[in-house]
Amino acid sequence: MVIATSREELSAARQNMRGQIGFAPTMGALHAGHLSLIERAKKENDFVALSIYVNPTQFGAGEDFARYPRKKEADIALCRAAGVDLLFMPENLYGANEPIVCAPLIGASILEGEIRRGHFDGVLTIVTKLFNLIKPMRAYFGKKDAQQLWLIQNMVKSFFMDIEIVACETTRENNGLALSSRNAYLSKSEKTDALKLSRSLFEASRLIKKNETKTAAIVAAILDILQPLKVDYIAIVDREFNALETIKKGETIILIAARVGATRLIDNMWI
Amino acid sequence: MVIATSREELSAARQNMRGQIGFAPTMGALHAGHLSLIERAKKENDFVALSIYVNPTQFGAGEDFARYPRKKEADIALCRAAGVDLLFMPENLYGANEPIVCAPLIGASILEGEIRRGHFDGVLTIVTKLFNLIKPMRAYFGKKDAQQLWLIQNMVKSFFMDIEIVACETTRENNGLALSSRNAYLSKSEKTDALKLSRSLFEASRLIKKNETKTAAIVAAILDILQPLKVDYIAIVDREFNALETIKKGETIILIAARVGATRLIDNMWI
Repeated sequence: MVIATSREELSAARQNMRGQIGFAPTMGALHAGHLSLIERAKKENDFVALSIYVNPTQFGAGEDFARYPRKKEADIALCRAAGVDLLFMPENLYGANEPIVCAPLIGASILEGEIRRGHFDGVLTIVTKLFNLIKPMRAYFGKKDAQQLWLIQNMVKSFFMDIEIVACETTRENNGLALSSRNAYLSKSEKTDALKLSRSLFEASRLIKKNETKTAAIVAAILDILQPLKVDYIAIVDREFNALETIKKGETIILIAARVGATRLIDNMWI
Repeated sequence: MVIATSREELSAARQNMRGQIGFAPTMGALHAGHLSLIERAKKENDFVALSIYVNPTQFGAGEDFARYPRKKEADIALCRAAGVDLLFMPENLYGANEPIVCAPLIGASILEGEIRRGHFDGVLTIVTKLFNLIKPMRAYFGKKDAQQLWLIQNMVKSFFMDIEIVACETTRENNGLALSSRNAYLSKSEKTDALKLSRSLFEASRLIKKNETKTAAIVAAILDILQPLKVDYIAIVDREFNALETIKKGETIILIAARVGATRLIDNMWI
C-alpha cells in the first residue's frame, strides 16, 4: 500500500496504477461500513484508492470539526489489512480565495441541507477536488448519507464527470445501529437510545409490508418510537427527494435525523 | 473536421483522438482573435478542439443573450479552414436543479463581477462542464477577458484540474480596436467612439514608458480620453487583481469597461 500525503506523492503513485481505479473518499475513523466500500471496490476494479481527510468546509460553526474522531494509525492498519492500494492522507486541500461548488438550492435547503447550512457545498467542493486528484473510474459512497449520495450523483451528471458513482448498502451492528464514526461520541446509555433510529425504520418497513401506504401514518409510527429524542426531521421522499404522500415501492427513501444527547445521528431506509 | 452536437457524438469523436488535445471554448461569432487561439493550439497539441455554445448562465437579466451574434455556417467554415479537428456545438448543456461553480467572492464582486452579478459563476460552471466533456490537456483563453482568465486559472488550481491554461494575446484591428464578437453591435460612428478604449490604454502605456508610476495619474489620463463615454470602471491591478497605487512593471494589468451607445465594451493592457 502506498501512502501519499502530498499532491506530488499522489501523482507519482497514481501514474503507476494503470487500470481501473475504485475510490472511496472518507473522513477516517474507519469502521465496517468503510470496509464494505473497500471490499466492493476491490471486486470491481484493478486498484482501490481511499482518502482520509476531515474536510473543514463541510462542518458548520459550532459543529464537531475539532472533536471529529481522528485515528490515523488504526486507519492505516485497517486499510493495509483490507487491501487498499493507495491511501491519500493530505494535510490540507484548500487555498485562499477559492471557487466552491454550490449544491442546487432544492437539495441544499432541505433535510441535512436545511439544518447544516453550507454543508453540501463543502461536500461537493471536496469531492470535486478529490475526484480530480485521484481520477477514479468508480467512486463508492454509502447509502447511509442518502442526501449526499443523491447530490453527488446529480453533480457527476450535471458536470459530465466521467465517473461511475456506486451506492453501497448501509452497514449495521447486529442490534440494527447504522455504523457511523460519530457513534464514538455515544455513552453506553446513549447507544441504547440510538437504537430507536433503526428500530423506527424497521417498524416503518414492517408497516409498509403490511400494506400501509400513507406516509403520514408511517411518520406517526416512527415519531412514536423516536420520542423522547429531539427529532430534526422524519422525511419520506422519492429517489429525487420529492416529498411523498403515498409510498411507492422501489422508489421511496425514509430518512430520519435525531439528537441522542449532544450527538446528531441520521439513518434511512430504501423501500 | 468532426462536428459533434451531442454528448454521444463528442465522446465517439474524442475516443479517436489519442494524443494531446488543445481546446478553445467559445461562444461563436468567431473572429481573428479566436483564430489566433486555434493557431496557437495547433502548434502545441496533436489535436485542436473548439466549442461553440452561447452559455445562457453567464448572461444576466437584461443582457444580450437573445441578440448575441450567432453565425453557425460562417463559424463552421472558419473552423474547417483553420484546421480545427473537433468542433463541439451542443444544443444545451444544462438540466434542472444543478449544482454550480461559484467564483470566489473576491473575484466575483469586483470589476466585471460587480457589474455583471453571477456572470463568473456562469463562466466557471460552463468551463467546468466543457473541460469534463472535452478532457483537454491545454485550454486557450484570450487575455482580453483578463478577469475571466484569472478566475479560470484560479479554478483549475483550486480544483486540481489537470489542464494547462494558456493565456493568449489580445488580437486588435490595425486601428487598435480589440476584437470582440460584440463589436458587431456597433454602428459606424460608434466604432469610431470605441477606439477611445484602446487609445486610452496606449496612452497609459506611453506614460508608463515615460516613467509615470502613480496609478491615479494614469487613471486620470485614461478617463480624459474615454469621455464622454459612460465608464463602468478603470482599474489598475496586479496579476492577482489587487488594486495598485504604484505601477509594478511586469505585474500590472490596466482594465477598462465603457459603454459605447448601448454596447458595453472591455479592454485591457498588461504592463
